[in-house]
Amino acid sequence: MRQIFNFSAGPAVLPEEVLQQAAAEMLDWRGSGQSVMEMSHRGKEYMGIHAQAEADLRELMGIPSNYKVLFLQGGATMQFAAIPMNLLRGKASADYVHTGEWSKKAIKEAKLFGKVNIAASAEDRNFTYVPARSTWKLDPQAAYVHVCMNETIGGVEFNWEPETGEVPLVADVSSTFLSRPVDVSKYGLIYGGAQKNIGPAGLTIVIVREDLIGHAPSGTPTMLDFKQQADNDSMLNTPPTYSIYIAGLVFQWLKRQGGIAAIEKRNIEKSSLLYDYLDATGFYANPVDKADRSRMNVPFTLKDAALDDDFLAGAKARNLLQLKGHRSVGGMRASIYNAMPIEGVRALVDYMRDFEKQRG
Amino acid sequence: MRQIFNFSAGPAVLPEEVLQQAAAEMLDWRGSGQSVMEMSHRGKEYMGIHAQAEADLRELMGIPSNYKVLFLQGGATMQFAAIPMNLLRGKASADYVHTGEWSKKAIKEAKLFGKVNIAASAEDRNFTYVPARSTWKLDPQAAYVHVCMNETIGGVEFNWEPETGEVPLVADVSSTFLSRPVDVSKYGLIYGGAQKNIGPAGLTIVIVREDLIGHAPSGTPTMLDFKQQADNDSMLNTPPTYSIYIAGLVFQWLKRQGGIAAIEKRNIEKSSLLYDYLDATGFYANPVDKADRSRMNVPFTLKDAALDDDFLAGAKARNLLQLKGHRSVGGMRASIYNAMPIEGVRALVDYMRDFEKQRG
Repeated sequence: MRQIFNFSAGPAVLPEEVLQQAAAEMLDWRGSGQSVMEMSHRGKEYMGIHAQAEADLRELMGIPSNYKVLFLQGGATMQFAAIPMNLLRGKASADYVHTGEWSKKAIKEAKLFGKVNIAASAEDRNFTYVPARSTWKLDPQAAYVHVCMNETIGGVEFNWEPETGEVPLVADVSSTFLSRPVDVSKYGLIYGGAQKNIGPAGLTIVIVREDLIGHAPSGTPTMLDFKQQADNDSMLNTPPTYSIYIAGLVFQWLKRQGGIAAIEKRNIEKSSLLYDYLDATGFYANPVDKADRSRMNVPFTLKDAALDDDFLAGAKARNLLQLKGHRSVGGMRASIYNAMPIEGVRALVDYMRDFEKQRG
Repeated sequence: MRQIFNFSAGPAVLPEEVLQQAAAEMLDWRGSGQSVMEMSHRGKEYMGIHAQAEADLRELMGIPSNYKVLFLQGGATMQFAAIPMNLLRGKASADYVHTGEWSKKAIKEAKLFGKVNIAASAEDRNFTYVPARSTWKLDPQAAYVHVCMNETIGGVEFNWEPETGEVPLVADVSSTFLSRPVDVSKYGLIYGGAQKNIGPAGLTIVIVREDLIGHAPSGTPTMLDFKQQADNDSMLNTPPTYSIYIAGLVFQWLKRQGGIAAIEKRNIEKSSLLYDYLDATGFYANPVDKADRSRMNVPFTLKDAALDDDFLAGAKARNLLQLKGHRSVGGMRASIYNAMPIEGVRALVDYMRDFEKQRG
């Protein structure tokens, strides 16, 4: 095991086995004499890597055959534009549920392309909860309903899958991708950047139901048109081949771990360890409603913010890195994605306990 | 030296030293305990890598201080849309010079956003030359003049830098990036995908004069707005960090080679070796006007196309890979980017000579 634990919110820790394999194959992928970085995206070696990655993702998530998997670029932020471009389909507006910073960005971008109806918002309590489904004011004529399944900054996660009837549900899963089972058939579109649970920054995955493809108006950039990408198997131009290769290694690693059900069990165990400690102490606090807490991103504050710098310095001395909270919320944040070993969470809790003893 | 020579048009061969360094640093970048892939893009380690990559690129190309360097995603194809979006600046049309397949794609995409005037075209002779500057019909009111400096498929390269007066010159340099000196001050915008001379697919570099930034109309996706990207140092969202790291290693390698002037000398030597042989034989042929031949991509045909498969099989047996020409032109294509050692070109010419002796 490596010497440090990296709690970065993304880009984030990757499985050590994956990095070891990537290092070993860097100069010569399986006797091909080439690095994956050097392979033509039209050659049979890379085409095999690409197809295997998609097949493994489909298997892991149980993606139905009437959904396309697109390997794109630009991050979730590029999709904040591409989604209304492709999915408004001539309709007057889309519904958005506002649960924090990333919802806010998605909403702002969507307004460039159409009317946005805020169906529900957690702003009244500073985005520390997910508004109950019963409170949502959905428009049955909406083009789609957009949710951010896990707010990386606020540490608020949907621990349930919303029902939206006939209106397609669109979910940003950037920071919860592959961390828990998802019933893909309930969604019109699922998307996320890879740089948290999947692989290197620069790969964006879109899983979209086929009937929602092919409705982009003329004037849509070709690269952002889901139909063009789907018809070309995400090879309208050169895809981010190396990032897809690493994602594929992560998918294989996930399968070796026992798949999504097994990884969810570990994620529950890891996050419970941290939240149980947070709740038992009066020294640290997490502001999120218990039912809506994120298993991936755990923000917490110290009783006295004047201790923050000392806490971070002490953490670093124990090789616990990247614990500083997002500048917009302050305090601390421990991101504990799939690849964070439970030993890392234990080491963090041990340190927090020691720090509390000394300074509490 | 590695056992194979990879003549892929892109993604393409990278310097062996770069791959060795990337492999060595994969699990622990310089004592940080992390892979570059795992680093927060806001952390000081990655910020340093990012800044160094930009500084080295500026030094290598002599980029003036009134130009921004943007590290983006989506390939040149995404820029085919972003450029008219940002640079039309309310003007009625843009001028495009049509020299082949990639010009054609740029023109088709630009038409989604405005009027395109074909200022010159080499279609009359099947795109085997660059139309002389004196024949261009430029519109002095055009928003910009677009050229593709090297047609990767046709093997046609500008061996001169066009003058366009007050109208900004926009150049796609995807397959000629860093292979020869460029007087950046003559251009309004220079752009290209990284996956030929620079690094992994998934990184797109845009070098743009500051006065051309800030003119995108409302409704432009934020990620495609040069001003948003420039104001945020290409970190509007998570940039493709690992690809930028590899690009930075390639920039350092280029500096160790003696910079662009030295690499150009080698590129002239390598391409001359191959073209001189092609011109001396009646068995192989290259259709491009001598003055307009690409130093990077050398397409050639055999006297009898029925021999193509045997030629490719024999090449593969000698570890000379990816020589099949693009499906749209047939025949062969040897891409000999910066990272292709001269030994690779010598091995190719030796093989071509032997094949001609046996089958000519």
